[in-house]
Amino acid sequence: MSILEERIDIEAQAIKAKKAAKNLSIATTREKDDALHTMAKTLEERLSTILEANEEDLRNGEEKGYEAAFMDRLKLTEARVRDFANGLREVAELEDPTDVTKSDWTLENGLNAKEMTVPLGVIGMIYEARPNVTVDATGLALKSGNAIVLKGGSSAINTNRVLVEMMREALQSTTIPAETIQFIDSTDREATQQLFTMKEHIDVLIPRGGGALINAVVEQATVPVLETGVGNCHIYVDKEADLNKSLSILVNAKTDRPAVCNAVETLLVHKEWLEQNHQQLKETLDENGIIPHGDATLQQYWPDTALATEEEWANEYLSKHIAIKTVDDVMDAIDHIETYGTKHSESIVTENKDTAETFLKLVDAAAVYHNASTRFTDGGALGFGAEIGISTQKLHARGPMGLPALTTIKYVMTGDGQIR
Amino acid sequence: MSILEERIDIEAQAIKAKKAAKNLSIATTREKDDALHTMAKTLEERLSTILEANEEDLRNGEEKGYEAAFMDRLKLTEARVRDFANGLREVAELEDPTDVTKSDWTLENGLNAKEMTVPLGVIGMIYEARPNVTVDATGLALKSGNAIVLKGGSSAINTNRVLVEMMREALQSTTIPAETIQFIDSTDREATQQLFTMKEHIDVLIPRGGGALINAVVEQATVPVLETGVGNCHIYVDKEADLNKSLSILVNAKTDRPAVCNAVETLLVHKEWLEQNHQQLKETLDENGIIPHGDATLQQYWPDTALATEEEWANEYLSKHIAIKTVDDVMDAIDHIETYGTKHSESIVTENKDTAETFLKLVDAAAVYHNASTRFTDGGALGFGAEIGISTQKLHARGPMGLPALTTIKYVMTGDGQIR
Repeated sequence: MSILEERIDIEAQAIKAKKAAKNLSIATTREKDDALHTMAKTLEERLSTILEANEEDLRNGEEKGYEAAFMDRLKLTEARVRDFANGLREVAELEDPTDVTKSDWTLENGLNAKEMTVPLGVIGMIYEARPNVTVDATGLALKSGNAIVLKGGSSAINTNRVLVEMMREALQSTTIPAETIQFIDSTDREATQQLFTMKEHIDVLIPRGGGALINAVVEQATVPVLETGVGNCHIYVDKEADLNKSLSILVNAKTDRPAVCNAVETLLVHKEWLEQNHQQLKETLDENGIIPHGDATLQQYWPDTALATEEEWANEYLSKHIAIKTVDDVMDAIDHIETYGTKHSESIVTENKDTAETFLKLVDAAAVYHNASTRFTDGGALGFGAEIGISTQKLHARGPMGLPALTTIKYVMTGDGQIR
Repeated sequence: MSILEERIDIEAQAIKAKKAAKNLSIATTREKDDALHTMAKTLEERLSTILEANEEDLRNGEEKGYEAAFMDRLKLTEARVRDFANGLREVAELEDPTDVTKSDWTLENGLNAKEMTVPLGVIGMIYEARPNVTVDATGLALKSGNAIVLKGGSSAINTNRVLVEMMREALQSTTIPAETIQFIDSTDREATQQLFTMKEHIDVLIPRGGGALINAVVEQATVPVLETGVGNCHIYVDKEADLNKSLSILVNAKTDRPAVCNAVETLLVHKEWLEQNHQQLKETLDENGIIPHGDATLQQYWPDTALATEEEWANEYLSKHIAIKTVDDVMDAIDHIETYGTKHSESIVTENKDTAETFLKLVDAAAVYHNASTRFTDGGALGFGAEIGISTQKLHARGPMGLPALTTIKYVMTGDGQIR
């Protein structure tokens, strides 16, 4: 197909989504939940077809020599597909975020004003390898009354295509239009870029993936973006930090799941605390297979430690490596976070409440912690239910985004002839 | 000054704003309110200096041959400057939107989570002729704990410069840093464009002005934008509309202030209602100096009426002209609004509640009205206090934006060693 024909096709898909969104916006909660359950059932019934399609992606991936971690994210098993289905059922259990009256008041002239939550309309989801996003994002979009245009990574295209076909097929037997789910069946980069500027048909773009993908969307899109996040997270161990709390929080935040965005990447440590506790710290790191990269001060205690580069302070390791910097006090720690942080999750360990207060107030991030692991910045952990991503931007939604982030508001004004 | 030097300067200003924002974020409500009152007092005391600077802009404007309406927006009088000062005092009376606990819960493991409102940080305000924006936006920014970088239109540069100098001077005698207010003292377009991409220093851009300015910002900015609005608003007069309500709502929405964004621009009228009431409608339009542009059906009743062009359906007149289209029913009206509307304010006049419900549900706009004028989409009219603009976007804020739109949230997590 020529680029011109493809351009027309993708626009046509977005227009179909927009039309479907209008019908979906007046569907009842019951209708949406029934659709989610039907989709879940269909995925389970057609399990072998899904796994076959996934096999094809895995074969292609092997040919291309993708690394093991990537292949693992791509690979589906019976258990994983059942997780997808159960995820949809869990979304059905969540409260409907739309048609909620946030405020209701009457002006002196008798005009009644209601601030109501309504769906955003059409969500453009741009993501990389993980096929679970195809199902999770669709479920969240549908429950919040939004149509969705999915553009997944090319490495998972066979899996994604089959997942979408099945979910659309499932909708045929419900009152929700199948056109609610649109799948951009293309591995062309241009296809993605077309979505960036379809302001008329797409209400929001949500990129999920690496920093390069997210930056491309933020820089090129004229459609509003919900930026999900890179997490270059820090733990600051203060002069007055408890030793045991410091070490257990550090180990948890670094090793529980090193590759996720709420894992810690840099330890900022007060010079006096380090002087007292460098031995225990080193032992703990070694025991847990954590590899430190330090600064000049740290090298005085641990001469074999590599120096962290400027690039390391600024980026995520997403592995069991950690950068360690000695700081003079809490303000020094805050300055470092301001320079290198990504406004995701930042933690202080201290027994001094005033110092903690200073940190919690002055650090600009979605989540700030006192004496706790950064790993709690997560929709599930916070009790929000499933999340569409973790926002590191400040507008619209910040931190873990559950269903309410997929809504906007509308003022519904009812009168009997009021004029101004 | 070379472009290169200027670039460095503007970035330096943005960095100063960012620093000031950090101090401002921990100021008390009392400190901020005192600063607002001091600023108000200074503006009143230095009234003659402000008017002199304004004279200079007016002289330049006359030389350039600006039209009367533009000159009127530019012109300050003693009364207008007093309005600026009183506007600041009113903002001081408003509730502080920051440091509000929106939710507070404790996880099973004892970790306490608080969702708190916090300032956005640094607001970049890009606007056209009206010098009142300089003062209004600064007041709202300061009260919500944000620093502000102001880039006003070149036609008002002398007025704006003096207003900013005085407000900064006023801050010298308060606890709020003068650097909170930054003024881009340049008439260079490139100066504006530099602000578009200063993601590190500026948290949000708010353009206020014509469609061209707003589009330029939306298309070029990588800094998140709060889009304020063009209002191509419609009134749909249904088959079952009350005659008197229809006419008075129409006249109010068109003539009260024709140049504002919540004025009506197109009347959609049910063919049967028109058949019955075309004479009264024509008389009302004539009496009120409203000039209709119609469709073929309307021309059958009023042969002298010009046909509205495609461009007229799609754009604001911002004057006493109005486009009138006959429609078959409410769905036909909704389709027209979907094609040409700008998602600002849309009204239906009908005595049939079901028809009204269909309209209120299916029309996608910031404010939807039943039997009332579109003119109520306004922070003052709705009781929000001063507004920073009217958002026609769906993310973050929709409709009139008061102080809460200038805040974001932060999760403040307090524990005693919790790990996951």
